[in-house]
Amino acid sequence: MSSKTGRRAGPTQTREAIQAAARSAFAERGYDGATFRTIAADAGVDPALVVHFYGSKENLFREVMSLPPEVAAGLVGLASGPRRSAGRRLATLVVGALEAPATRSIVLGRIRCASSHPAAADLVRETVTADLRRLTTALTDDQPALRATLVGSAVVGIALARYVVLVEPLCSMSPDEVVDVLAPTFQRFLVGPLT
Amino acid sequence: MSSKTGRRAGPTQTREAIQAAARSAFAERGYDGATFRTIAADAGVDPALVVHFYGSKENLFREVMSLPPEVAAGLVGLASGPRRSAGRRLATLVVGALEAPATRSIVLGRIRCASSHPAAADLVRETVTADLRRLTTALTDDQPALRATLVGSAVVGIALARYVVLVEPLCSMSPDEVVDVLAPTFQRFLVGPLT
Repeated sequence: MSSKTGRRAGPTQTREAIQAAARSAFAERGYDGATFRTIAADAGVDPALVVHFYGSKENLFREVMSLPPEVAAGLVGLASGPRRSAGRRLATLVVGALEAPATRSIVLGRIRCASSHPAAADLVRETVTADLRRLTTALTDDQPALRATLVGSAVVGIALARYVVLVEPLCSMSPDEVVDVLAPTFQRFLVGPLT
Repeated sequence: MSSKTGRRAGPTQTREAIQAAARSAFAERGYDGATFRTIAADAGVDPALVVHFYGSKENLFREVMSLPPEVAAGLVGLASGPRRSAGRRLATLVVGALEAPATRSIVLGRIRCASSHPAAADLVRETVTADLRRLTTALTDDQPALRATLVGSAVVGIALARYVVLVEPLCSMSPDEVVDVLAPTFQRFLVGPLT
């Protein structure tokens, strides 16, 4: 970036550029293909700076693959509305996050890396479990861990079908239509009878 | 194989060895990582034989990533039982297929390759669409294409969570317990109201 504009980017912009480049790299090239060198090149910084900021690839992955604070807060916040519409609120949040390029990269990067690299699978398990269990335990004490797993599985399945495998009609439905279809599934997973 | 036993494997065994090696390679190394050379080495045959049998990697992928005929037939056969238990029959078939190493490799190989290689995503879209739409169109004329997509997404999500990311409690539940949880989801996706 600095080489293009002739101005030095501030430390916050530099970190953001590295994080965006890392997210795209993990999503598009997988865990092994996303190297400090290629991420630094995409972000327009020296590879040594990426090493200085994040130390290890595992640490970088953990940092950029965490949900943005507003999405994580939104998830927990869902628990405070009426129970009968919890599934719809979750569907709205999930579809909104998948439609936004930055959060979509996080979800697709997690899937791509977890399916190709055991260490990435461990990290994904940790983060998904933590994020979603906060929501399900706030809603019910009936099998909240299993409910979190089911929600996570559904998100992964929809993300792959709609944005990667591009299956019709799912990939050309409007976000609102996808919310309509997901809401009843999430409603049961969150607060309905599981069997 | 022949080098180990001192006997020449017959053509059927040789093809089966190549197909098993290819399935594992696609599932474990991804589309780009699964080369004719490594697949031939795993199957104990000459790489030229793999080329001779399949011609292109795309062709090999298409062949070994198709559902086994008995699973494809089982899918369509589901449509002929009582509608009220269609979801449970599908859940039983899906969980049985995921528990069997050969079909699990097919599902995980499709996911891994589709999430890393656009040509593989195209092939996965074709096969999944064809397999599942035969079932949903046999059951209903209310949005069968969307229903097929939703079933496929759910299978992908459960497969990743249970066998790749190893999320608890899903990964240590018995197959019967997973069937119990999946059955109501599939019932709605197959014949229930979608929104």
